[in-house]
Amino acid sequence: MTAPGAGASGEDSLIARYFRPLATEPGAFDLADDAAILKALGEDIVVTTDAIVEGVHFLPNDPPDTVAQKALRANLSDLAAKGAAPAGFVLTLALRAADDAWLTPFARGLKADAKRFHCPLLGGDTVSTPGPLMISITAFGRVAAGKMVRRRGAKLGDRVVVTGTIGDAALGLDILRGGRVAAALAGDYGAREMLVGRYRVPQPKTTLAPAVRDHASAAMDVSDGLAGDLAKLCAASGVSAVIDMPGIPLSPAAAAALAAGAVGMEALISGGDDYEILCTIPEQGFEAFARAANSAGVAVSSIGTVIAGAAAPQFLDEQGRHIPLPRLAYSHF
Amino acid sequence: MTAPGAGASGEDSLIARYFRPLATEPGAFDLADDAAILKALGEDIVVTTDAIVEGVHFLPNDPPDTVAQKALRANLSDLAAKGAAPAGFVLTLALRAADDAWLTPFARGLKADAKRFHCPLLGGDTVSTPGPLMISITAFGRVAAGKMVRRRGAKLGDRVVVTGTIGDAALGLDILRGGRVAAALAGDYGAREMLVGRYRVPQPKTTLAPAVRDHASAAMDVSDGLAGDLAKLCAASGVSAVIDMPGIPLSPAAAAALAAGAVGMEALISGGDDYEILCTIPEQGFEAFARAANSAGVAVSSIGTVIAGAAAPQFLDEQGRHIPLPRLAYSHF
Repeated sequence: MTAPGAGASGEDSLIARYFRPLATEPGAFDLADDAAILKALGEDIVVTTDAIVEGVHFLPNDPPDTVAQKALRANLSDLAAKGAAPAGFVLTLALRAADDAWLTPFARGLKADAKRFHCPLLGGDTVSTPGPLMISITAFGRVAAGKMVRRRGAKLGDRVVVTGTIGDAALGLDILRGGRVAAALAGDYGAREMLVGRYRVPQPKTTLAPAVRDHASAAMDVSDGLAGDLAKLCAASGVSAVIDMPGIPLSPAAAAALAAGAVGMEALISGGDDYEILCTIPEQGFEAFARAANSAGVAVSSIGTVIAGAAAPQFLDEQGRHIPLPRLAYSHF
Repeated sequence: MTAPGAGASGEDSLIARYFRPLATEPGAFDLADDAAILKALGEDIVVTTDAIVEGVHFLPNDPPDTVAQKALRANLSDLAAKGAAPAGFVLTLALRAADDAWLTPFARGLKADAKRFHCPLLGGDTVSTPGPLMISITAFGRVAAGKMVRRRGAKLGDRVVVTGTIGDAALGLDILRGGRVAAALAGDYGAREMLVGRYRVPQPKTTLAPAVRDHASAAMDVSDGLAGDLAKLCAASGVSAVIDMPGIPLSPAAAAALAAGAVGMEALISGGDDYEILCTIPEQGFEAFARAANSAGVAVSSIGTVIAGAAAPQFLDEQGRHIPLPRLAYSHF
């Protein structure tokens, strides 16, 4: 596989063929060097890393373009929740073989997203593995110095706010696995497709980043389930929260699956892969935040209030009764 | 494995237990947030990524502390070759299980190196995999704006210079695999240990970075074999080179293996994992570079000259005869 005259290996030509078109930033040096340059431009560089493993975070038969999108968007979702604008990413790709039929759509999906989210490829490493495919991405964002929004910072009385709808991705995974949701929505192809799409292709709330930066006292993205992620935000902030369960935004498809008894509310709020933003907004800033969210084209819902205490957040039903949650979030170990 | 009250999952407590002590930089936020902050401090941020896979880049029974060191040092070697000082790194760790007997020495090795090389952990992701262990590191360095040393830039007449000794790691791997080198050095335990150590624990030439930045016209680290990496540097620079094969620096152990006929010179210069710096130095700067290298405690050898042309570098023997090299470098695909 080596081409000694040109000093190019199979690995190098793989990178040139599939990934050089994504390296549009001058500091990427056309992926022809050992490192890239990231200019800070007077702002802070926000760094985040998320890896996805075949059979764990995506299914072996998921379309390769959506696998690429999921890998990048999981990171873009983190950047958005921190109030940062995308600046670029590096990619580690562990492959069993240089399979053109997989790499072509993978690179196409990645390229489309790099362009869509203004997040060029800066560099990476391609290695062979006898095991499952793995994609690890480290993404960079820029935020005004000192302005990254932390998990800590939520204050008593702040509103608890979440973007979009919750639980769709968990339902999509259930459908792909042939679970009860597929049967409950057997008559609604569009709903099933929407839910599967939510599992495969997250929608990072990149356009909301400036509003989060300007208004949120604390924020994180919802990737391991709303309930568990809220518990983490509260723990980091030294507070608790009370959540109005009926106020949690559901898609019509999720509401239908819930009404049909195919899934319970606690599964929706403890499933993963939502990639929405969870944040706390001081009351006096909420109206401005909501206006900015509207301008950014992102739906936001106020679902509860930050309260004092070290207990796990409480989820209340229509009657104000506490709903116990046995399992809050997905954990690898 | 979840601890709902604290919002901590098994994954979170694994990170807290093993990796928080490495996160000494304020911008790492004690690994308790979703992202880290990297301050540029008016310099360029150099970004590099290297991943290692069990069974491919390291052996299943390699000591975990050396696996950690190899993963980090492969990246530190890239930074040094680019003239950059280490600033921090993020870690993706794909594990089959949270095995304390493996994680404890792994974290210990990583911590020692993070301290030794002033390269703190900034963040990361820990995921489960049914396949081989994989460690992917993205490391950051700082270099004065515009001063990163590229692969391109070698000019006609420049000296070709390499640090340390070449081929030791390839011999170490051969020994671990019970190859011919083990038999040839059967009587010399110290030599075998040294070679195995070179395979398992690279010695990045971090202290040489300022001299490379100030004097090299082009540079890269030698990770895939000297011959192939030199070919890449030449191709990127649009030049060729002529190399005096007897001038290539060998350790006494490698020289003994060569003299015993257990290995050929072409295997030494096409084996991987050297993690030395290969650079080109204009003649008028060589003396100052050599002095700086001496002060930095790094041995450097002048092994050839940059010449015009697009052909692969020529390797000449004592009699000035061209030595053909069938295979230049390791390639994954």
